[in-house]
Amino acid sequence: MTFLKRYEELCAIKQEFAARDWFPGTSGNLAIRTNSSPTEFLVTASGKDKRQDTPDDFVHVDATGQLIGDEQNGRPSAETLLHVEVFNRTTAGCSLHVHTVDNNVISELYGDRGEIRFSGQEIIKALGRWEEDAEVIVPIITNHADIPTLAADFAKHIRTESGAVLIRNHGITVWASTAFEAKKQLEAFEFLFSYTLKLQACRQAIY
Amino acid sequence: MTFLKRYEELCAIKQEFAARDWFPGTSGNLAIRTNSSPTEFLVTASGKDKRQDTPDDFVHVDATGQLIGDEQNGRPSAETLLHVEVFNRTTAGCSLHVHTVDNNVISELYGDRGEIRFSGQEIIKALGRWEEDAEVIVPIITNHADIPTLAADFAKHIRTESGAVLIRNHGITVWASTAFEAKKQLEAFEFLFSYTLKLQACRQAIY
Amino acid sequence: MTFLKRYEELCAIKQEFAARDWFPGTSGNLAIRTNSSPTEFLVTASGKDKRQDTPDDFVHVDATGQLIGDEQNGRPSAETLLHVEVFNRTTAGCSLHVHTVDNNVISELYGDRGEIRFSGQEIIKALGRWEEDAEVIVPIITNHADIPTLAADFAKHIRTESGAVLIRNHGITVWASTAFEAKKQLEAFEFLFSYTLKLQACRQAIY
Amino acid sequence: MTFLKRYEELCAIKQEFAARDWFPGTSGNLAIRTNSSPTEFLVTASGKDKRQDTPDDFVHVDATGQLIGDEQNGRPSAETLLHVEVFNRTTAGCSLHVHTVDNNVISELYGDRGEIRFSGQEIIKALGRWEEDAEVIVPIITNHADIPTLAADFAKHIRTESGAVLIRNHGITVWASTAFEAKKQLEAFEFLFSYTLKLQACRQAIY
Repeated sequence: MTFLKRYEELCAIKQEFAARDWFPGTSGNLAIRTNSSPTEFLVTASGKDKRQDTPDDFVHVDATGQLIGDEQNGRPSAETLLHVEVFNRTTAGCSLHVHTVDNNVISELYGDRGEIRFSGQEIIKALGRWEEDAEVIVPIITNHADIPTLAADFAKHIRTESGAVLIRNHGITVWASTAFEAKKQLEAFEFLFSYTLKLQACRQAIY
Repeated sequence: MTFLKRYEELCAIKQEFAARDWFPGTSGNLAIRTNSSPTEFLVTASGKDKRQDTPDDFVHVDATGQLIGDEQNGRPSAETLLHVEVFNRTTAGCSLHVHTVDNNVISELYGDRGEIRFSGQEIIKALGRWEEDAEVIVPIITNHADIPTLAADFAKHIRTESGAVLIRNHGITVWASTAFEAKKQLEAFEFLFSYTLKLQACRQAIY
Repeated sequence: MTFLKRYEELCAIKQEFAARDWFPGTSGNLAIRTNSSPTEFLVTASGKDKRQDTPDDFVHVDATGQLIGDEQNGRPSAETLLHVEVFNRTTAGCSLHVHTVDNNVISELYGDRGEIRFSGQEIIKALGRWEEDAEVIVPIITNHADIPTLAADFAKHIRTESGAVLIRNHGITVWASTAFEAKKQLEAFEFLFSYTLKLQACRQAIY
Repeated sequence: MTFLKRYEELCAIKQEFAARDWFPGTSGNLAIRTNSSPTEFLVTASGKDKRQDTPDDFVHVDATGQLIGDEQNGRPSAETLLHVEVFNRTTAGCSLHVHTVDNNVISELYGDRGEIRFSGQEIIKALGRWEEDAEVIVPIITNHADIPTLAADFAKHIRTESGAVLIRNHGITVWASTAFEAKKQLEAFEFLFSYTLKLQACRQAIY
């Protein structure tokens, strides 16, 4: 029953993000833990149009990202290794990767600094930080076409039970305890990115 | 029957705003008066994804924001105290708080001035001002993580039976006589914010 | 049967524009001719949320904008006089007025010039102009809170069987032979406005 | 059965693009190959509102773009000749032309250079290029009101089995092996255009 519940949670997130057009060109991938010991998780299958719903949208994989059993259609997302790092290094239940215009532009504008910082924003509370002077830092790492190289670099930034990493011109990965928490945090990050870009586009005109 | 009608009005607003993606990261909260003497109102429950519809989306509270009776699931929104101030200081029937990219950017760009002013816009009529030279002023107050402190500051700006206050980097609260009026006024304010930002982003390029 | 067909065409446009959020704060109004001699037309009722569908969304009026018969609920839109001018001065079958962020920003940026001109755009063909060097001019008039004054000024710019006028910070009115044509032309104008604004916001950054 | 499958694929793309508002003012046209030898394809009928679904949305044409048989309602899109060039010069199964604000602005900003180049973007993988240093070039050609002239110029840039050409202020045409591939590539190009424009609008403000 846990497996089914997790499956349904992941379906719901996929449909909601598809409605927001957050999977351009079949980009993006989503993962949810279905078992803790040993680690098992569901991940979006490779190369599908996530605006469509089919019985083969997700595959069930083990702690190394390999298919469990030999009856599954489809291959795991090419970027499954990043989710493997999340589930092996934390107790997170859900890991979401999306590729939006705004998170890509932020990753490019701030990429040379290696990070972007946020503070003084009410929405930071959605990231579990309730102090008035809370500062949130999102690392921005170099993109590598070679996924094992990318995953190794990404893994260095998995330091907390929930968190986020931007990959330059390749989107954001957010992980948290549950599907609900991961989605909430991803929405908060996308809000912060859109806010920052609009502020920059409009600020100079006023003063 | 009044209670049920108010409940349905608040459900409809929640669904419409959710469709506009006006509740990022579970932000935003909505309240509608169900009784005047003593003051009672419905308010969104804390920490829920308002894109989902459940039986526990709203809680029924008294004039101090406390749950009425002991059979309700859920807690009132953490920001219920702001709606308490609205309902205790005015005859308003509805109070809406949303957190959008545009109202946050406006609150930051104009925050140091403590207000933003609008005039010469046809949409000001939606705010109940029909004079050709009508000017609308929206105060912008400092955000405080401590809600009682925020509510006390907010309360100072509740001077009319319908109105609006921006909280810096924390969204807008709009109150008016009915759900219909409050929603109409909120739409007009969001229009004015979006208009202002786009004008600023494009103006310099033309002259 | 003609009446019913026209009614259904206007309902469809109202629903489509509502889905695009083109009626902020109950703004906007739509009209369709139901009879030519004498002139009769349907027009959106005043003060309604056009995202809702009700039996009283439209009223049936005569060539002066007065209700036909005494059994109708609702009042004609406050701006019915502008549609009166269209139907009395042309053979147009449909007249649409919408208030969008982009048409308002254009009306302000180009308002002092009294017009905006477009050329070299493929979408101009949707306005019925197929020549390669076609130029389209949209007049921009001053807004007046007094509707008869506004209608008289507006009427001076109704010089062709299909056309458009921008009212400064008050939206666009487009008229054409049929509902299909009027909607097509309105879409083309909104495209041209959005294109122009985005070009201006991005142009300086590149050179 | 192949014919029916192709027909359904084209319907699905039309509905999805309509939901994104990618057919302003009846612009845009879509084509899918139904037979290879001799070449036959389905193409959107001329002058229709592609947000509506009717039995006459597409027509079946031959390798010269002429209607097959004499029982079809409707005329082929005025720009069918461009799809003719695609299907006669490649083995592509699908050819899509859309007119968006962003692809028009890009075509104008980069039009004098005759092309736009992209590199260092993860989404380039959706275009079938997996090398880390892959560069994608989209030619930008002059628009001509005369379609045979435009088609002849367009044809010069059909050099690969899948590809894209921007027509200045007239949109993009993308062709690829299947409907799935063509849609994926079009989404990737539109992402790259939107990314580029937002980067340009925001970049200067930060440094």
